[in-house]
Formats: sequence, structure tokens, C-alpha cells
Amino acid sequence: MSRIITLTTDFGDTDPFSGIMKGVILGIEPKATLVDLTHKIEPQNVLQGALMLASALPFFPPKTIHLVVVDPGVGTARRPIIVKTHDALLVGPDNGVLTAAFSGKVEAYELTNTKYFLPTRSSTFHGRDLFAPVAAHLAAGVKPEKMGRKINNPVVLKLPRPKMDGPVLKGEVVYADRFGNLSTNITAQDIKRHLPGPPVMKLGRRTLKQFVRTYGECEKGKPGFLINSWNAVEIFVHGDSAQQMFKLKPGSPVSLRAS
Amino acid sequence: MSRIITLTTDFGDTDPFSGIMKGVILGIEPKATLVDLTHKIEPQNVLQGALMLASALPFFPPKTIHLVVVDPGVGTARRPIIVKTHDALLVGPDNGVLTAAFSGKVEAYELTNTKYFLPTRSSTFHGRDLFAPVAAHLAAGVKPEKMGRKINNPVVLKLPRPKMDGPVLKGEVVYADRFGNLSTNITAQDIKRHLPGPPVMKLGRRTLKQFVRTYGECEKGKPGFLINSWNAVEIFVHGDSAQQMFKLKPGSPVSLRAS
Amino acid sequence: MSRIITLTTDFGDTDPFSGIMKGVILGIEPKATLVDLTHKIEPQNVLQGALMLASALPFFPPKTIHLVVVDPGVGTARRPIIVKTHDALLVGPDNGVLTAAFSGKVEAYELTNTKYFLPTRSSTFHGRDLFAPVAAHLAAGVKPEKMGRKINNPVVLKLPRPKMDGPVLKGEVVYADRFGNLSTNITAQDIKRHLPGPPVMKLGRRTLKQFVRTYGECEKGKPGFLINSWNAVEIFVHGDSAQQMFKLKPGSPVSLRAS
Repeated sequence: MSRIITLTTDFGDTDPFSGIMKGVILGIEPKATLVDLTHKIEPQNVLQGALMLASALPFFPPKTIHLVVVDPGVGTARRPIIVKTHDALLVGPDNGVLTAAFSGKVEAYELTNTKYFLPTRSSTFHGRDLFAPVAAHLAAGVKPEKMGRKINNPVVLKLPRPKMDGPVLKGEVVYADRFGNLSTNITAQDIKRHLPGPPVMKLGRRTLKQFVRTYGECEKGKPGFLINSWNAVEIFVHGDSAQQMFKLKPGSPVSLRAS
Repeated sequence: MSRIITLTTDFGDTDPFSGIMKGVILGIEPKATLVDLTHKIEPQNVLQGALMLASALPFFPPKTIHLVVVDPGVGTARRPIIVKTHDALLVGPDNGVLTAAFSGKVEAYELTNTKYFLPTRSSTFHGRDLFAPVAAHLAAGVKPEKMGRKINNPVVLKLPRPKMDGPVLKGEVVYADRFGNLSTNITAQDIKRHLPGPPVMKLGRRTLKQFVRTYGECEKGKPGFLINSWNAVEIFVHGDSAQQMFKLKPGSPVSLRAS
Repeated sequence: MSRIITLTTDFGDTDPFSGIMKGVILGIEPKATLVDLTHKIEPQNVLQGALMLASALPFFPPKTIHLVVVDPGVGTARRPIIVKTHDALLVGPDNGVLTAAFSGKVEAYELTNTKYFLPTRSSTFHGRDLFAPVAAHLAAGVKPEKMGRKINNPVVLKLPRPKMDGPVLKGEVVYADRFGNLSTNITAQDIKRHLPGPPVMKLGRRTLKQFVRTYGECEKGKPGFLINSWNAVEIFVHGDSAQQMFKLKPGSPVSLRAS
């Protein structure tokens, strides 16, 4: 049975690093189906890697293996791990980049069995020498238990959560996509639970009143906000970039109150 | 039987959107063979998407499914459609991006059967929630007829065609590739049909006389023009960028006359 | 049996050229497993293509086919070739880009049998019309001998090698990766063989003494050098870009002496 392995790294796509990891994987498990999630995580931005992975996990079929290499501590004492959820396996460094896996009941294993690594192992490219072969062996059916020892204190990032401040729901921008749409950490549920009426948004001194369902409901060139495809509040400009219009970026504060 | 699904979008490759679409597809049809055409259509540039697709269609085997998401009207009244040609299936928004399909006898279907969409459907990411699952079900053998109702007025773009103006064949630049080569809408056939002798090119006040067969026939750093691999007139500079030398872009006028 | 075909080009990923090559390949050999190495070789930089390929070859399983199109001489007299090594096949232009193949005993063939090309053949896109179909036919089991005639003078690049100058081991930067790490042509073996003690590095007027095993052993923001995952001396800045700090690029001189 062919298993899917997704790849998420900060390697970019100019260097052949992700292609080389695929060579290693296919040498071990030729039937693996490889899917690039993205190789353009900002260099060593562990939080961004964790968020990207979280956005993708729900859309892959059961038994998918997610290989994630955003690894500023490569070669140091940080542990290489496998995380086993109810329907997926994740492989990567124990630095929080696999945080998305830790929502339900999970098991985590530190990779200690060098039998499943490449025979010669560098201290600068564990993606190739360690994580890729481990993912391939998982795809070939080797159990995580055989590859290392159970641990119970993996690193889990605290993702920023919105808060109420009087009548105001305060959150922040978490991501700007290619179109300049700004995704926030405020969800549709947060609005429903905390605001007594339809929301208006404060962005610095500006107020956005256009809370709509689709981009097309605003005039061309005009901003608005909506619930996006991950159920989060998103700021947009119809046919243009909200990121450029508002000069916001991940971490910028955003607040909502009932109109 | 494994079917090919190509992907053409304006999602870029930093965001994990195209990878997520692949997760959805493989969850429905694990045997699909996925090929990225490009994810770097300029945001919401429907014409560019249509041209890229046109350049690729002839080189894929029969029964290929082409999934195209350049979709500025996502969530609005624009229809999601399937187009069935004599040897291919295309899936995308009904905004003209599938224009390349409409050269021979075709059938078009509006996607109305929500059974073939994802169960929960956003109004901002139909690539994931609607077009990807439909493409996957097509790959798995579901007939277009089962997915929607036939329509006979799909949007077809009028691609710019060259014209004769006295003895002058007037066209325009349609594409600049990575090398800065400028492809035009004038074909080898246009020249044969309309010009009584070998062509010279006018670019603003400059005249190009080097009409050659290969880039290598011009001196390094010198410009020329030739019939390219899509049978179109292309302006180039040997070992350099014609786009930079001539400051031209899609839409810039180009004219040929017999020398 | 499914065969791996890797693709290495200077086509970038905006134009659909690499996707079109995949369409051609899958039309001939639907079972091929396609792996992108990189499409971001600098336009027409044959040496960079050769180095990237060299870095990847050892990590692919036996019988892999490597398709390489960095081809400034497309359409001219330069020969299209296959190179057969003890465990791989390489396809590309005879301009040195396949140099990595020529370390052991190899056979080279000029592609002359047009039966294995596309029926109509442009003089500007041999990647699509010639190299892709040939790679596909190789994957389908056709022998190189059937595709052309043996040649014994293929172009092999002289890769820059380090030299001793008195007590100083002189090399050069050969590659800057996405992280700004600078890989050199000096190997761990060169150091062992030529330097009587632990090395210090001279970069212009600056001296680097931090010769370490992992990036993490230097303070954040501080430079050092180490043996990287290709067994080469690499200059880095922990958590930052050595390329930007030192303003070096491929070809910049680097020297080591015993401390």
C-alpha cells in the first residue's frame, strides 16, 4: 500500500535539498507518494512552520506521514522525534514545529535507533540523513516503537490566542498569504461566543465595517473582513493586497467589537 | 488506471494551498498522478492562466484532467465548471481561464452536485473545497454528467490576434519567460500567409533584421527573432534578456513587414 | 517496474516548461516517478547545474535517470547525449552539465535516433522535444545503444580544486545556499592531508577561528566554519547569513592554514 509523505521545510526551492530528501525516501520506499506542502517557510521560523502544518493536517487522508524540517538547532542536543496521532505520523525536530499534532491523544518517540538513519550522518543536514529515511521506513510499515523510545515532554508552542478586554475582542495577524490577505487568530466561534452583535474591526485608527461572506461583496479596491476557509477572521482588499494597504504583518494587533 | 491531474493556479508556492489541494485529491483518488504546471500565474490574471494552459494542453496524454484555479470571483455567482474535450477534462471557474479547451467540439457542465464537493465548503477557497474533489472524482471515473448540468454559454476569452495594416503585420507581445524571451501572438503561419518575403521586425523605432532559426545564430548580446517552440514569433537576445533590453511586456505592440 | 526520473533545469517555476516536460514523459512512460531537483539553476549557468547535480547523485537509488536541461546552445551543433554510469543514466546537452557522471567508468552516447524524439522538433526547446522523450524511453527500458552512437569525447568541466601555497590551503566559495551558508571547494580530506593542525580561515583581512561541528556551537550572530553535509568546508553565521555578512559569492577566494 502506497503511503503519502508530505514535506514541509525552510529549504527554499533553489537548492536541491528537498529533491535530495526525496531521493533518500524513494531509495528506501519506492512506493511512497510525495507531496510538497511548502519549502518556503522563512529560514528557521519554527512558529510559521507549525502554523502551516496546522492548516494542512485536516486535509490529508488517514495514515499520511508529515515530514517537517525547520531545524535551527540541527546537530545540537534538540531531539529528533516522531509524533503519532490517531490518524497520522509526524517526523521532525523537537522544537515545537510539530505542535499541530498535539491536540488529541498522541504518543511521541525520540529517534534513537540509528539503524533507521543513513549510514553516514552529517551534523548539518538531518533532513537528509535522519528525518527522510525515518519517514520512508514509517511509510514502509516500520512501527515508531522500533525507532526510538517514548518521551512525554515534547516541545509544544503556545499559539497566540485572542482575549477579551472589556467589550473588545483582541487578537493578532498570524499570516499574510500571496494575495496579501491577512489571516488572524480570531475564529468565527470567538465572535459568536464573545460579541453580542455583528462585528466591526479596528486596525490602528481605522475602522472596517464591511463584514462580508465573499471577497466579491466589497467594491474593487475596498477593504473588508470575512471568515476564511480555516474559519478565521481575515482582512482583505478586493482585487488588491490588504498587507500593503494596511502595512500589517504577523503579530500586528487587531480588535473587534460589536457594532 | 492511474489518471494524470495537472494543477495550474495563482497560489504561489509559499502558502501551502496547492499542497492542501493535493491532500484532498489523494484522499479521494490515491492513484492520481499529480503534475504542477505552474502556481505562479500573477494573482487573478485570468488571461495569463488561459495562455499558460493553452501552451501545455497539447503535450499531455489523452484523458488528462486539468485543474485550473485562477478565480478572482471565488464565492460569487460565477459558475464552477467542467469542460470535456475530445481527449481531456478541464475543471475550474467559468471566467475564461479554460478558454484553451474551446477549440474543437466540447461539452461544458456547471458543477451543481454538492455530493462531489467537500462536506463543509468555504466561500474563499473553492480550489480546496470544490475543484480539487471534483477533479479527483473525475480521475476516479465519475462522469461529468453526474456532477452537474450541461451549459452552452461558458465564458470564452477573445485572445488577441494579429492584423494586417497595409503591408504591415501587427501583433503584440503575449508573454515574457524566465530568460526574458518575448513571445508574440504572431505565428509562423501568419508570416507565410501575409508577408511576401522574409520578415523584418519593428519594435518602436528600432528595426530587427536577424530572423534566425536558433538563439545561437546571433552574436552574444545581440537581439534577433525566431519561430519558437510554440510556432510563435519570439524576440530574444542571445545570452541575455530581450525583456530588459527592449522594456516590452505583454500587450506591447510588435510589427513585421517583408524586407 | 517504476523508474525515477529527476529533473534539473534553469527554467524557473513561473513558466510551465518543466510541467510540460512531465506531460511528455508521462505520455510515453506513465509509471515514471518524477522528482524535481531544482528548476532554479541561474539561467544558462552550466557550472552551477553541474555542481547541483553532483551534490544530488549519491542520494538517489540505482537505476535513477537524471534529466538535466541547462542548455545555452540549444538548437546549435552541441550534441544531445546520454551518459551511462555504473548505476545511473543521465540525459542532457553535451556542454559539461553532466560532468558529475564522469568520475568512474562511463559510456556516452550522442542522441541521433530521431525515433525517440517528439515527431515535430523545435530548435528552442529540446527539453520538451528531445531530452524528455528520451528520458521517458530510457525509463521504459529502451537501451541507450538503440538511441544513438557511442562517443568518447564528451565535454567535462574542470571543477575548481584547492591548492597549497606554502603553508596555506587556498580554495574558493562554490555555492551560497538559501540560508546564506557558503560552501567551498575545500574538503575534510584536503585539511587532513595538507594541514598539520586545526585550521583557521582567512577571509580577506578577517580571521575565523571557530572551526566547529554544528551551527549551534557558535553564539547567535557569530560566524564560524565547519565540515558540511557534503564533506566540504562551509562558512556560516549562526542564525544569520554568512553571504551577507562577508559579501562573498561563488569564486571568492578562501584560505586555510594550521593554527
